[in-house]
Amino acid sequence: MSDFSLHPRLAADSLHIADLPLCQVRLMNDARYAWLVLVPRRDEIREVYDLSADDQARLWQEATALGKALMAAKAGDKLNLATLGNMVPQLHLHVIVRHQGDEAWPGPVWGQGQAVPYEAKQEAAMRDCLRNCLEAGGLA
Amino acid sequence: MSDFSLHPRLAADSLHIADLPLCQVRLMNDARYAWLVLVPRRDEIREVYDLSADDQARLWQEATALGKALMAAKAGDKLNLATLGNMVPQLHLHVIVRHQGDEAWPGPVWGQGQAVPYEAKQEAAMRDCLRNCLEAGGLA
Repeated sequence: MSDFSLHPRLAADSLHIADLPLCQVRLMNDARYAWLVLVPRRDEIREVYDLSADDQARLWQEATALGKALMAAKAGDKLNLATLGNMVPQLHLHVIVRHQGDEAWPGPVWGQGQAVPYEAKQEAAMRDCLRNCLEAGGLA
Repeated sequence: MSDFSLHPRLAADSLHIADLPLCQVRLMNDARYAWLVLVPRRDEIREVYDLSADDQARLWQEATALGKALMAAKAGDKLNLATLGNMVPQLHLHVIVRHQGDEAWPGPVWGQGQAVPYEAKQEAAMRDCLRNCLEAGGLA
């Protein structure tokens, strides 16, 4: 494992949840959505294809297993998976559970309205939920 | 291979390019971006995790190899990969080469402005480019 440093904007916008074999799992601090960001713990990576083939496979496996568990836990209507990174060059994968009628539905969530930071109780509940999801996804 | 039918909205908005082992490659008919959509040729699939493990691996491999080649061909600044599907439930993966200063930069492309359909000459050039990308990505 090489050193890994998190882009300051990702650090500011999200909360640390867990370190998986490849990715750091972070919760976007926006209670409007169940919205995770997975950041491969490798330096100098901008694109998925900059990762080794093994790491690429691990990225998708971690994202898909966690996304599936979170969809079940939150009774989601659609899972959005996306690497955009036009603002933050460090590779990061968005994993977002969408519900019909959520604030941005059916559009994408980025740039829509203002983030609503978690209150302490909500955050604790979400951390519990995510702990269960990591177990359900075979990632804990 | 099971039967495969394409959602009418995907059929209307994009042009057939190639059939890979898993995905049908389609070009969004919007000359503002080098924007592909990969549609797994399986029926009744909404989420990545509805695919078999082998098909999931194949999906990422096809998307990443093609995206990498297209980034090189178009001298892109960032590759966007995304499964959203809030409007079209059939699983499809967006593969979009972004440039600093493109119409939606740095925001996401969806829902920004009006698509600009390809003119015949542009479309022919893009088909040539994509044929070369498929070869460069080991997909042809």
